[in-house]
Amino acid sequence: MVTKNQIKLIKSLSQKKFRNKHGLFVVEGIKGVREFLNSSFELQYLFSTGDNFEISKEKVIKVSDAELKKISFLTTPQIALAVFYIPVIREVNFSGLNLVLDGIRDPGNLGTIIRLCDWFGIQNIICSQDTVDCYNPKVVQASMGSLSRINICYKELSDFFAKSGDIPVYGAMLEGENVYSQKLPETALLVMGNEANGISSELSALLDHKLNIPQYGKGKDTESLNVATATAILLSEFRRNSVTEKQN
Amino acid sequence: MVTKNQIKLIKSLSQKKFRNKHGLFVVEGIKGVREFLNSSFELQYLFSTGDNFEISKEKVIKVSDAELKKISFLTTPQIALAVFYIPVIREVNFSGLNLVLDGIRDPGNLGTIIRLCDWFGIQNIICSQDTVDCYNPKVVQASMGSLSRINICYKELSDFFAKSGDIPVYGAMLEGENVYSQKLPETALLVMGNEANGISSELSALLDHKLNIPQYGKGKDTESLNVATATAILLSEFRRNSVTEKQN
Repeated sequence: MVTKNQIKLIKSLSQKKFRNKHGLFVVEGIKGVREFLNSSFELQYLFSTGDNFEISKEKVIKVSDAELKKISFLTTPQIALAVFYIPVIREVNFSGLNLVLDGIRDPGNLGTIIRLCDWFGIQNIICSQDTVDCYNPKVVQASMGSLSRINICYKELSDFFAKSGDIPVYGAMLEGENVYSQKLPETALLVMGNEANGISSELSALLDHKLNIPQYGKGKDTESLNVATATAILLSEFRRNSVTEKQN
Repeated sequence: MVTKNQIKLIKSLSQKKFRNKHGLFVVEGIKGVREFLNSSFELQYLFSTGDNFEISKEKVIKVSDAELKKISFLTTPQIALAVFYIPVIREVNFSGLNLVLDGIRDPGNLGTIIRLCDWFGIQNIICSQDTVDCYNPKVVQASMGSLSRINICYKELSDFFAKSGDIPVYGAMLEGENVYSQKLPETALLVMGNEANGISSELSALLDHKLNIPQYGKGKDTESLNVATATAILLSEFRRNSVTEKQN
């Protein structure tokens, strides 16, 4: 059974200010909930219409389909909904490749980028303060459980760069060098910018290298690449490079 | 002014059977409409709340915000809505790289893939009959005008492959060869499969080469890559290869 207070709490977690106030966020669907249960995230509540979890029974609150519908953020609720504590941020380990996001606004894009980082073994994502919150329900849904495995923090990016020492900073920009002809290092920061405006001018002054994915289409009307697909290509370029290095 | 018959017609175009019956589809937003006007697509109606187009005034039907809201498929209508004729399909020119889609169901994914093809200069997309319709309003919206520059056809794929002669056929599969170590040709077909099930078994038997994007994340739970981001990486690999070839 879901209590009135639980419904009120969960509904409030669609908003960032209440997620921050309570230090809680929502995960939906059996697969997603399982991945968070298997991670270091701490569970507060787990509501489910079935027996789908290998945890002690008293931790699972059985609910009806109608009750689940009351607390779910999805049009079609997905059997299970869990509330987890927002974890304490780990410090960023600068070794290896880390991703920096400057003003990503679309929850679907951030979710897709988190999933990409999981695939490519990127351990940290450092977001500008105006990047969409990673505990937004739509981000959690789009990241497909990958959020449980990536360390994500929000920082004033110019301060962050000041502390990054001599780690090379790369940024994706239309006027950058052809990425295919670059020798990319294993340890670096890669900056991706806002969907409409790219990397802010303040931040672009702090880049050591600018990278461009060459366009092959003829149309001058062709939109720039979507930020998630551009991130996919650039992370792949960094990774293929270290593979090639090791083979040579 | 919008007539009742126009409202009825436009509303019906959200469904594939009526798009096919009338041979018409809808484009929304100034930028998207402009790109279709600048292409070989033939206009039927153009409704707009403002003066935003460099075409003769009698072709533009002035509407109020309230009227636009009645015909728009968007939550927030975007100033202009146009109805275009679905073009006659051009035959596929097999020279160069062409993309084959086997059962892509999500309109957002197809739209993103069309935009990628535009960026990477891919001229033809050959879709299986069960791939989402490219004139679906959500696909048109997600493709950001790129749909006006790509030739898209729907075919029985096994028949299509039978006619493709000795063009090499590549497919994205988890059990494929590491794409980073392949020498990829300029002329080829690249097959991408369904979001949940990948390339069908019938079709995978017809592939000449299977390609895999290596995973660097540790988690065995890591989802496969989303089909649009995987397409981005593979198209980039084919293109970088032809660049590198020319440099050597």
